[in-house]
Amino acid sequence: MKKNLMVFIATAILCSVSAFSQESKPAQPAKHRVVFELNAPSPSGWDQLFNNIKNVQQIFAKDGVQIEVVFFGKGLPMLLNKNAEYAARLKEAADAGVNLAACQNSMRAQKVTTEDLFPFTSQVDSGVAELVRKQEAGWSYIKGGE
Amino acid sequence: MKKNLMVFIATAILCSVSAFSQESKPAQPAKHRVVFELNAPSPSGWDQLFNNIKNVQQIFAKDGVQIEVVFFGKGLPMLLNKNAEYAARLKEAADAGVNLAACQNSMRAQKVTTEDLFPFTSQVDSGVAELVRKQEAGWSYIKGGE
Amino acid sequence: MKKNLMVFIATAILCSVSAFSQESKPAQPAKHRVVFELNAPSPSGWDQLFNNIKNVQQIFAKDGVQIEVVFFGKGLPMLLNKNAEYAARLKEAADAGVNLAACQNSMRAQKVTTEDLFPFTSQVDSGVAELVRKQEAGWSYIKGGE
Repeated sequence: MKKNLMVFIATAILCSVSAFSQESKPAQPAKHRVVFELNAPSPSGWDQLFNNIKNVQQIFAKDGVQIEVVFFGKGLPMLLNKNAEYAARLKEAADAGVNLAACQNSMRAQKVTTEDLFPFTSQVDSGVAELVRKQEAGWSYIKGGE
Repeated sequence: MKKNLMVFIATAILCSVSAFSQESKPAQPAKHRVVFELNAPSPSGWDQLFNNIKNVQQIFAKDGVQIEVVFFGKGLPMLLNKNAEYAARLKEAADAGVNLAACQNSMRAQKVTTEDLFPFTSQVDSGVAELVRKQEAGWSYIKGGE
Repeated sequence: MKKNLMVFIATAILCSVSAFSQESKPAQPAKHRVVFELNAPSPSGWDQLFNNIKNVQQIFAKDGVQIEVVFFGKGLPMLLNKNAEYAARLKEAADAGVNLAACQNSMRAQKVTTEDLFPFTSQVDSGVAELVRKQEAGWSYIKGGE
């Protein structure tokens, strides 16, 4: 009886510990996870973004790195498909797995529709809330721009 | 004897795990906790702050969210009570539970007294140290401004 | 047999918990650890940096605080040894244990060599990657500048 209780307690503990670990370490994510905020006006933070992404990709190439860039405020216009100057570099980033996420609140405020954006972009309900969610999930936060 | 030892070990483990959980999860906080830095000159980051706050409040309304804004440097003047343009929006945020915290170091440097500030504001010894303390306590950090 | 199994399980749990604690709490580090990003052009964020550092040092004096400043982009030129205006204040920070780290990617881009930098500086492969590594290790992140 006591032994059964012990097994029960031990199992319970084991599950708690395991649950706790799983919470903070989801199944085999990239070792490094970085969310960039792009809320800066052109061109100050725009050109630098690509350097930042490339640096992180190179340095963490062996371990694996997951990158998301959240565009809102004055950063959102960078994702407009009429924005030819940045098209090739953004596409290259997206092709390499970088998630380019437009803030839907900024889209509404700036009257930007899905059709106005590069096709290789994604969307989030709120740029700021997304930055919070990512930090809560253990991602490092880097605010782009100077 | 061995059984007692086991009970002791199991209890010890249980307590450790529980202590650990309690450390990282204080009694029923809001699920989301966000600290904004407002160190930007008017008006670039000032107007955007209210959008940021509202977005976070709306998105996390169901789960609960605790918000603090730390004002220092060129952000501190936003809290001066002579600053009529922002009074209503700041008051609305404070009424909704947002902690508007003035940095006392910046207050000294800018010769700002408690009487100069909106009555619904609070104060912290150092804006930067407060941002550190909040991050250490698990809050997400968002630097306001562009 | 069952008892041995229990001892094994309990020991395993104990080790996991202990390993987990050790992972998140390395041997006696400073209680507070802060990494500043200095990516801002002169003079907006440059003068403020010293206030930020001093505030953090004073507030956390009793507990101990470890500070690193990562200089890249338009922040890198602050570390050039021809930059007499900031020499004394930077030296004072370095003497107090602040790690002043130049980004080698920015050095290459700006054709800056080790000889061009103040002798009391250090270097990191990538400023952005360093900010990520520090956050992953539990440091608080503060982006300098307005």
